[in-house]
Amino acid sequence: VVRISDDVSGLERIEFFSDAVFAIAITLLVITLAAPKGSPSALGSNLAGLQGRFFAIALSFAVIGQFWIAHHRAYRHIVRYDLGLLWLNLLYLFGVCFLPFPTEVLGRYFESRLAGVFYGLAMTATSVAGGLMLLYAYRRGLMEDLPRGERREIGIRIVITPLAFLAGTALTLVGNALAALFWAVVLPLTRVGVSALARRTRP
Amino acid sequence: VVRISDDVSGLERIEFFSDAVFAIAITLLVITLAAPKGSPSALGSNLAGLQGRFFAIALSFAVIGQFWIAHHRAYRHIVRYDLGLLWLNLLYLFGVCFLPFPTEVLGRYFESRLAGVFYGLAMTATSVAGGLMLLYAYRRGLMEDLPRGERREIGIRIVITPLAFLAGTALTLVGNALAALFWAVVLPLTRVGVSALARRTRP
Amino acid sequence: VVRISDDVSGLERIEFFSDAVFAIAITLLVITLAAPKGSPSALGSNLAGLQGRFFAIALSFAVIGQFWIAHHRAYRHIVRYDLGLLWLNLLYLFGVCFLPFPTEVLGRYFESRLAGVFYGLAMTATSVAGGLMLLYAYRRGLMEDLPRGERREIGIRIVITPLAFLAGTALTLVGNALAALFWAVVLPLTRVGVSALARRTRP
Amino acid sequence: VVRISDDVSGLERIEFFSDAVFAIAITLLVITLAAPKGSPSALGSNLAGLQGRFFAIALSFAVIGQFWIAHHRAYRHIVRYDLGLLWLNLLYLFGVCFLPFPTEVLGRYFESRLAGVFYGLAMTATSVAGGLMLLYAYRRGLMEDLPRGERREIGIRIVITPLAFLAGTALTLVGNALAALFWAVVLPLTRVGVSALARRTRP
Repeated sequence: VVRISDDVSGLERIEFFSDAVFAIAITLLVITLAAPKGSPSALGSNLAGLQGRFFAIALSFAVIGQFWIAHHRAYRHIVRYDLGLLWLNLLYLFGVCFLPFPTEVLGRYFESRLAGVFYGLAMTATSVAGGLMLLYAYRRGLMEDLPRGERREIGIRIVITPLAFLAGTALTLVGNALAALFWAVVLPLTRVGVSALARRTRP
Repeated sequence: VVRISDDVSGLERIEFFSDAVFAIAITLLVITLAAPKGSPSALGSNLAGLQGRFFAIALSFAVIGQFWIAHHRAYRHIVRYDLGLLWLNLLYLFGVCFLPFPTEVLGRYFESRLAGVFYGLAMTATSVAGGLMLLYAYRRGLMEDLPRGERREIGIRIVITPLAFLAGTALTLVGNALAALFWAVVLPLTRVGVSALARRTRP
Repeated sequence: VVRISDDVSGLERIEFFSDAVFAIAITLLVITLAAPKGSPSALGSNLAGLQGRFFAIALSFAVIGQFWIAHHRAYRHIVRYDLGLLWLNLLYLFGVCFLPFPTEVLGRYFESRLAGVFYGLAMTATSVAGGLMLLYAYRRGLMEDLPRGERREIGIRIVITPLAFLAGTALTLVGNALAALFWAVVLPLTRVGVSALARRTRP
Repeated sequence: VVRISDDVSGLERIEFFSDAVFAIAITLLVITLAAPKGSPSALGSNLAGLQGRFFAIALSFAVIGQFWIAHHRAYRHIVRYDLGLLWLNLLYLFGVCFLPFPTEVLGRYFESRLAGVFYGLAMTATSVAGGLMLLYAYRRGLMEDLPRGERREIGIRIVITPLAFLAGTALTLVGNALAALFWAVVLPLTRVGVSALARRTRP
């Protein structure tokens, strides 16, 4: 019942739809911020009181940005699609769409470990969905033929990225600030490291 | 007064506009969730209290995803358009845009039969609009020539999909959870079944 | 200082940006609806109490749909652009983006004549901006060569559409329901009439 | 670890994603406006009381419009991309996405100097990010070969635009209305002036 299709315009519509969802999710992060109410003289301290929100929003912007770049990169290799890929892509996008909510929770309860764990697990789940999508595309032969180095890089990434998000989630035991630092800084470096590693081991 | 046009870029703009509406509607589902207010210590129970909302959002995500996939598939066969198709497409998109509202109602009043009926009728109406669009496109000769099997599949779908949504709506008499299960699980299986059936009967 | 450009990809980005704005504005109409709060037993009457809102949203959906179709049609003839066209297009889109606000006002104060006038003037202003954009494109030679009939049709439309919106606004003196009917039904018929008229007078 | 890529479809996805973010940010400006609550008879004065909000929204619409046109123009010259450009583009878009928030703050506290400074600094920071992106693209050889006049124009713009936003920010010391006038009127004129200047000095 699942047809494999390699029509280019169909793939373009999928990428387009995904890009639109990424763009909306990333823009909606800020929209949950409402201008503080109160007297003009309290504006300064009210804005300062939003710093946890600003930080969480900037963090999620960077994380969704990473997801978008990863999606962008993955679909440069995906040349065919079927119904299963459509649904796994939707599952992944569901994770992305959901992120503004844990972001708002984390921003409001920056001191709460539960908020950090909730945020971390949402990120981890999204990244697992992304990995499943890639794995499926690879196994079903929906990707173009890749040189061995790139194949290995994708393989490592599917495993490493969710683990890195999970490791960050564990760091919320120490504190949400440390976990956030990890997601914002260490995680992108891991990706760069994986690229370098996979490339070095290429013959 | 209705011109039939087969300019490709015009059709692309229609698909593009539709994809954007789908993407926005699907992303806005989550945005009606606001982070719970209250003391940090109550965060856990407050989040748990949102489970009806989470469930309704996930359900609507799956339903809008199905609508999008169906639209995607239909427009692979539509090769011309006229003013009537534009308006029927807008009517269909109106249904899609409206869905975040019954989703929020269902999420907040998960125990209320009225909420389930309201949600179900909104889905059914949207799916009727989608069927009318397809029927119109077929009758007006806006589709490419299709093999008999595919034509029959589309024909069955136009009838079956609204009926399946309506059947789910009837199930709210038993309970909203059962209806939701039906929409989320049985409905996609029906589609797969229709495909298989139509294909088997192909010569 | 204004360069005339006929690069196709530039024009496509303008159409794309415009389509995205239309799609967002049309989808956001519904988002201003919040699920009614209150006891489940009051849900029915609370939903019924929203009927003014539903009606205003459906009306604005139809109006923005008309604007989108008109934009779509205009840009099939526009083959070049300059900085002036970009800004007039932005002015027009500003009108479109603004419409969810008068829609919410009209929906909440359906009995208020002021709400009807506010809504009508917002529509009229947007339609004037659209006319200015078309006029500019025509005068600056940014359109392809058009047969005389089509040129006349566009000319009539630039004048008739804002007048029709203004006439509807005047009808709010009798009642908002009548004005709404006019905008939803008479206005599209006017357009169809203009097309027919312009075509008949073609040699 | 940074690959330079000149695949056209990749660049198109970046432009597309950016356009979508611009379109959403510009549309969300209005969505922070809620219809005034209160008795119908107070509607007129309540709407009049929103004039600061209307003004701030119109201003931000014009500013985001300028950013979009500048982005549009820049990417007509950018023909290759790498990971660094992707991130600088995201940083720039973060600034754009953030603007609805300072816009709401300015609209609510139009008399407050702090609101004006906050707004001005947000604009300035976004424009610095845009300049960094352009500078990076130029230095890394991601742009097509440009005639000397255009190169100079871009160079002047990277320096002038943030300075002009900063100058407007300084004007909030006199009053937010003056600063707003400067951003809305003087700033676009500066751009036109830079174009004229760069063109005149071309051999």
